[in-house]
Amino acid sequence: MSFVPPIARLIEELNRLPGVGPKTAQRLAFFLLRQPREEVYQLADAIREARDRVALCSVCCNLTDVDPCPICAAADRDRGVICVVEDPRDVAAMERTHQYRGLYHVLQGAISPLDGVGPDDLHIGELLRRLDGGVREVILATNPDVEGEATALYLVKLLKPLGVKVSRLAHGLPVGTDLEYADELTLARALEGRREV
Amino acid sequence: MSFVPPIARLIEELNRLPGVGPKTAQRLAFFLLRQPREEVYQLADAIREARDRVALCSVCCNLTDVDPCPICAAADRDRGVICVVEDPRDVAAMERTHQYRGLYHVLQGAISPLDGVGPDDLHIGELLRRLDGGVREVILATNPDVEGEATALYLVKLLKPLGVKVSRLAHGLPVGTDLEYADELTLARALEGRREV
Repeated sequence: MSFVPPIARLIEELNRLPGVGPKTAQRLAFFLLRQPREEVYQLADAIREARDRVALCSVCCNLTDVDPCPICAAADRDRGVICVVEDPRDVAAMERTHQYRGLYHVLQGAISPLDGVGPDDLHIGELLRRLDGGVREVILATNPDVEGEATALYLVKLLKPLGVKVSRLAHGLPVGTDLEYADELTLARALEGRREV
Repeated sequence: MSFVPPIARLIEELNRLPGVGPKTAQRLAFFLLRQPREEVYQLADAIREARDRVALCSVCCNLTDVDPCPICAAADRDRGVICVVEDPRDVAAMERTHQYRGLYHVLQGAISPLDGVGPDDLHIGELLRRLDGGVREVILATNPDVEGEATALYLVKLLKPLGVKVSRLAHGLPVGTDLEYADELTLARALEGRREV
């Protein structure tokens, strides 16, 4: 015997979360048991409610509690540009730049044969359906890693024949870093994409 | 705008957990949103239920869902020995040794002036009340750190005059380590506590 059943169950459930091992699960469980009841209820309710109320936007496949999502429904966004990202967090990252006023499309993943994720597992069909209207440009903003590049390449082949302008986010040096710390690939891409000033 | 309200709230609640920063909170939130509804409910219910059903044992101050706790209620434990620990997880650690058949007393903390924790914040009164009966020995098993040592010293001063035998867990080399990697303090304690073979 180590912990009474309700504690053992809580530790077991927390242990299922990504990046939470048995020790962390124990620490979190005993933290929760020491917190005021009201605050613990708030966490439990937030978990339940988010899972209950959040679903995919029928237009852009982002996670939302209203359909269409606030961005798809906004009157002041440029409906002629669609930025394709892998994940809802990428939408949040793009929005934080305050530089983009178009719409998004969230693939909910990237092509990754090793993880058994193929094009059919992504929300690509939904993207193609959106291109009927007045979409001038599709910006591919998948991650600059193997999976993201593979996904971007796949989409380029699919979208180019449809006559829509397809662009990819620029690769290059991150702002505020030192040239000497840049990896060769990033530096090569920065050189390749150099711009006249 | 970055995330819709239910997601933002979930991230905020998860962010309150110890060791969970904003990025981890986001990762956990999106993990939960992708999980089957039933599994997410299980987590929410486990949190709520543990907080609802678990309270301090009226005898040993361990966390339990039945009072007295299973260890205090067990007929086959030696009621003459009480092992004093800081935390319920320490009880679990002791139990895993399968070497101890006495009872426990959980202080629910250690003396730590820097954190504003004094003797009155620990369950020491409950321990003293238990010494009326046939308790032969109190084993101080608080952590071998500054707070744990201070707490042990405080308890020694309190318990010695009551005529009960007071012992402290041995300090020394952890099993399976290399002598050369032991810190000076541990090595000095191991030397001090050497035993004739």
